Amino acid sequence: MESTTVLAEITGSIATVGYGLAAIGPAIGVGIVVGKTIEGVARQPELAGRLQVLMYIGIAFTEALAFIGIATAFIFGA
Amino acid sequence: MESTTVLAEITGSIATVGYGLAAIGPAIGVGIVVGKTIEGVARQPELAGRLQVLMYIGIAFTEALAFIGIATAFIFGA
Amino acid sequence: MESTTVLAEITGSIATVGYGLAAIGPAIGVGIVVGKTIEGVARQPELAGRLQVLMYIGIAFTEALAFIGIATAFIFGA
Amino acid sequence: MESTTVLAEITGSIATVGYGLAAIGPAIGVGIVVGKTIEGVARQPELAGRLQVLMYIGIAFTEALAFIGIATAFIFGA
Amino acid sequence: MESTTVLAEITGSIATVGYGLAAIGPAIGVGIVVGKTIEGVARQPELAGRLQVLMYIGIAFTEALAFIGIATAFIFGA
Repeated sequence: MESTTVLAEITGSIATVGYGLAAIGPAIGVGIVVGKTIEGVARQPELAGRLQVLMYIGIAFTEALAFIGIATAFIFGA
Repeated sequence: MESTTVLAEITGSIATVGYGLAAIGPAIGVGIVVGKTIEGVARQPELAGRLQVLMYIGIAFTEALAFIGIATAFIFGA
Repeated sequence: MESTTVLAEITGSIATVGYGLAAIGPAIGVGIVVGKTIEGVARQPELAGRLQVLMYIGIAFTEALAFIGIATAFIFGA
Repeated sequence: MESTTVLAEITGSIATVGYGLAAIGPAIGVGIVVGKTIEGVARQPELAGRLQVLMYIGIAFTEALAFIGIATAFIFGA
Repeated sequence: MESTTVLAEITGSIATVGYGLAAIGPAIGVGIVVGKTIEGVARQPELAGRLQVLMYIGIAFTEALAFIGIATAFIFGA
């Protein structure tokens, strides 16, 4: 009697894939936010302070979405 | 009686896929940030110093999301 | 009694998929960085040297994310 | 008693999927690089030589990421 | 007693999925290259010849990545 069941030798938690997907968008978003800030400062350097305040607000809101990707693993019981 | 169940001979950790996904966004983001800096320096070379400071802030925030993609594997017990 | 379950004859390491995903972003990022450099040099050829320095910094930061995609396979024990 | 479970007769190496993913970014990246070069030459035809040098540097760095996608299959023992 | 469990009758090689993915990028890349050429010729029609030379170089480099996606199936022993 021969009964060999090789299912798949993939180890690890699928939660890493979840975070990976969750991180794609925020990172591109942060890039656009900072990129546009640099563009704005290059055009009107005297507004640099105000533009940077907006930049940090933008970074905070976009990065939060990636960090929630870590939290969901614990919410859904990874 | 012959019962051979060969499901898939794929080896490796799913965490590599997680990191792979997590690296897509940051790399595009860093590309946008550096690209906009180059554009800004080409327009106003005298602001190169201030634009590079913003560039490094942008790189730090975006690359962090990729490095967290390595950390998640250990958080979720890969 | 015959019980043969051939699910999928797929061989290989999932780490190749991980690298494949990790390479999407950097390549687009490098393309944006070099593209903007070409745009900048076309506009202000006298700044070519300084723009190329920024270009190589950008390439280094973005390509690093792809190369880490190879390293992760060994980190997570592929 | 007959119990045949034929789930999916998919053959091949997962490395082809890895390369497929790895080729998405470089092709878009090369497209951006060559596109910006064409834009630059259309604006300042006298700089065509210098822009093409940058173009080939950009193509080299971006295509390399796709070719590494073939190499990884052998690195990870596909 | 007859117990036949046919879950999904998917046949074929995973290499087609690999090529499918490999074709996403080149198609977008060629689109960018040809699009920028049309833009450039529209701006400076007298440069049409030189821009088309660059266009064909760009198409060659980007389409090559898709064709390699067919070759990989044989390299990895599909």
